[in-house]
Amino acid sequence: MDIYLDNSATTKPYKEVIDEIARGMEEYYGNPSSLHGLGIKSEKKINEARDFIGKCINASKEEIYFTSGGSESNNLIIKGLAKPGHHIITTVFEHHSVLMTYKDLEKNGVKVTYLNVDSNGKVSIDDIKNSITKETVLVSIMHVNNEMGSVQDLVEIGKVIKEKSSRAKFHVDAVQSFGKLNIDVKKMNIDMLTASSHKIHGPKGVGFIYIKKGLVLNPLIHGGSQEGGVRGGTQNVPGIIGFNKAAEITMENINDSYKKVNELKEYMINRLSEIDNIRINSPLSDDFTPYILNVSFTGVRAEVLLHLLEENNIFVATGSACTSKTSSVQGSYVIKALGLSKGEVESAIRFSFSKFNTKEEIDKTVEVLKNSLRFLRRVKK
Amino acid sequence: MDIYLDNSATTKPYKEVIDEIARGMEEYYGNPSSLHGLGIKSEKKINEARDFIGKCINASKEEIYFTSGGSESNNLIIKGLAKPGHHIITTVFEHHSVLMTYKDLEKNGVKVTYLNVDSNGKVSIDDIKNSITKETVLVSIMHVNNEMGSVQDLVEIGKVIKEKSSRAKFHVDAVQSFGKLNIDVKKMNIDMLTASSHKIHGPKGVGFIYIKKGLVLNPLIHGGSQEGGVRGGTQNVPGIIGFNKAAEITMENINDSYKKVNELKEYMINRLSEIDNIRINSPLSDDFTPYILNVSFTGVRAEVLLHLLEENNIFVATGSACTSKTSSVQGSYVIKALGLSKGEVESAIRFSFSKFNTKEEIDKTVEVLKNSLRFLRRVKK
Repeated sequence: MDIYLDNSATTKPYKEVIDEIARGMEEYYGNPSSLHGLGIKSEKKINEARDFIGKCINASKEEIYFTSGGSESNNLIIKGLAKPGHHIITTVFEHHSVLMTYKDLEKNGVKVTYLNVDSNGKVSIDDIKNSITKETVLVSIMHVNNEMGSVQDLVEIGKVIKEKSSRAKFHVDAVQSFGKLNIDVKKMNIDMLTASSHKIHGPKGVGFIYIKKGLVLNPLIHGGSQEGGVRGGTQNVPGIIGFNKAAEITMENINDSYKKVNELKEYMINRLSEIDNIRINSPLSDDFTPYILNVSFTGVRAEVLLHLLEENNIFVATGSACTSKTSSVQGSYVIKALGLSKGEVESAIRFSFSKFNTKEEIDKTVEVLKNSLRFLRRVKK
Repeated sequence: MDIYLDNSATTKPYKEVIDEIARGMEEYYGNPSSLHGLGIKSEKKINEARDFIGKCINASKEEIYFTSGGSESNNLIIKGLAKPGHHIITTVFEHHSVLMTYKDLEKNGVKVTYLNVDSNGKVSIDDIKNSITKETVLVSIMHVNNEMGSVQDLVEIGKVIKEKSSRAKFHVDAVQSFGKLNIDVKKMNIDMLTASSHKIHGPKGVGFIYIKKGLVLNPLIHGGSQEGGVRGGTQNVPGIIGFNKAAEITMENINDSYKKVNELKEYMINRLSEIDNIRINSPLSDDFTPYILNVSFTGVRAEVLLHLLEENNIFVATGSACTSKTSSVQGSYVIKALGLSKGEVESAIRFSFSKFNTKEEIDKTVEVLKNSLRFLRRVKK
């Protein structure tokens, strides 16, 4: 049996989602932009999804726009807003679809402030406050960090941005938190938000952005008038239907799942205490999501450990999937940002949970870890 | 029974494609960027698709990059190449995902020449030749026009571009021709090409671009190193698997389908001769694809006719789905480009076929057209 502990990279789709997509491809194949009944039928399904997903974050359906996923969503928001001369504030450990976009914009005269995070991966509210200038158009902060699981206090961040500036918009990359932590765009003063379907047992190739009513972005994909003119291209109707189904199931159980996963994380941390020379990089606390447990196994190269686990059908990550090929060589830039030692950075493994994981799976994983470490550390001596 | 004659807007997915996607979501859910076996298994499936799709157009798998569809593909290619001061040549009747992208680039100092087309929708080879300057970096011409079905002579166009310039790249929007007409990027001297899955009975939300080896484009979606760094974001694995399956079935029957659809078009044109005051805008000839039959029913508003057909479960279009909401008011800019009269523009209906259409469906459609026109034209008098 596979033990899948890489749920922050992607999740296995719900059975109900697979069925819904198959049915969607059969019944709702009309182009939602077509004027005839088959098109209107498809458009109606999209708008139902828009309505439900809007409600999940306390937004209205007119504020939800479907995209092909989290990376496109982040690019659309940032490039759609920023112009030469603008100033943007972000953190050093955002997802690459945010950081690489800023690197590109900097070539075109956009100024970017990269805020540091503390050893828990928290950004300082004062740092945000002190960085906002008259030129600041955007503060872009991820809700939950994809490698460490650090959770930012969005209510406080939103408050300080709005107190300090009437111009700066607040963008939240919520790819790792949508469907896991509660989000309220009004309470949190969020102007734009990014989320992805395949992180919550929905299909790959679909995501959404929330854009607060009244805000206008330049499209990333020019074309037809789909998605209110914000994103050209025939909508991925079955994908959106599948995303909606995944959101329904996920939101219905959001608190139970949180509780279950929190117990799993606590259980695993307890069991890991049986192993020497490790560092829990994302302890059990309100500062971290329960869905991610990042651990350094000092003295061991994370990639080697990953492959030993894999031989036992246990699937984990050394960091973000999107940067796995570089970080396996250089060590994760996210973990580095927390000020860990070289040895701790190189030996960091991310276990990421879903509600489908069990204590038995954790037991098996810890056993394999013990055996692997015994072997690896002996070999080293 | 529905009679679906809007196959240029989108197609009904093959049953095999639906099954393959369901299986793909079940078995290949791993993130293709993950370092473990589940990820590698997904990556392998993507590369199989890349290989097959490359072969369809005589390209290698290293030259194929998956995207979310035709509109993204066109935006990626054009924005990825063009810089301020550059010159681009295109036609007046490209798809909106091309034209709107140029409109945006013109604001940033890119110069664009829009070539006219003749009454058959053909661009003149001499016009292309005479428009190329030292600043020309791109000639972007669609293979088959989505409203009229006009086919451009890509071999001749590719030849003249390469003779005249060593700098200008040749981009072909092949969204309406991939899987329908034969394409050979080498023989046609194509440097970049765009295609979409949902036009050939594949899933929505997937497309590809061909980029000739050696050419480097700036990404539209910055992020991870997926798709050779050309496009960040977790790949839509089941979508790509479904696209591959659709391409396999489509390519296997490409010549038979062409023949069958050609017969359908001929049959329908013959039967339409029973109706007075019509104009066949895309006659049966090598200048037009058999997959599209555009007809003006003079004296009648196309949208009214569309809805009367729809009442009989016959689904057609007044133009491109992507611009349907504006063109239903203003008349299609594509048909206008051909120099038709106002009455002919306002009454144009696009019938677009697939190999699944039948002569019986054509008979039924012509009968409903006759009755509808008798009614509408009498009302008018």
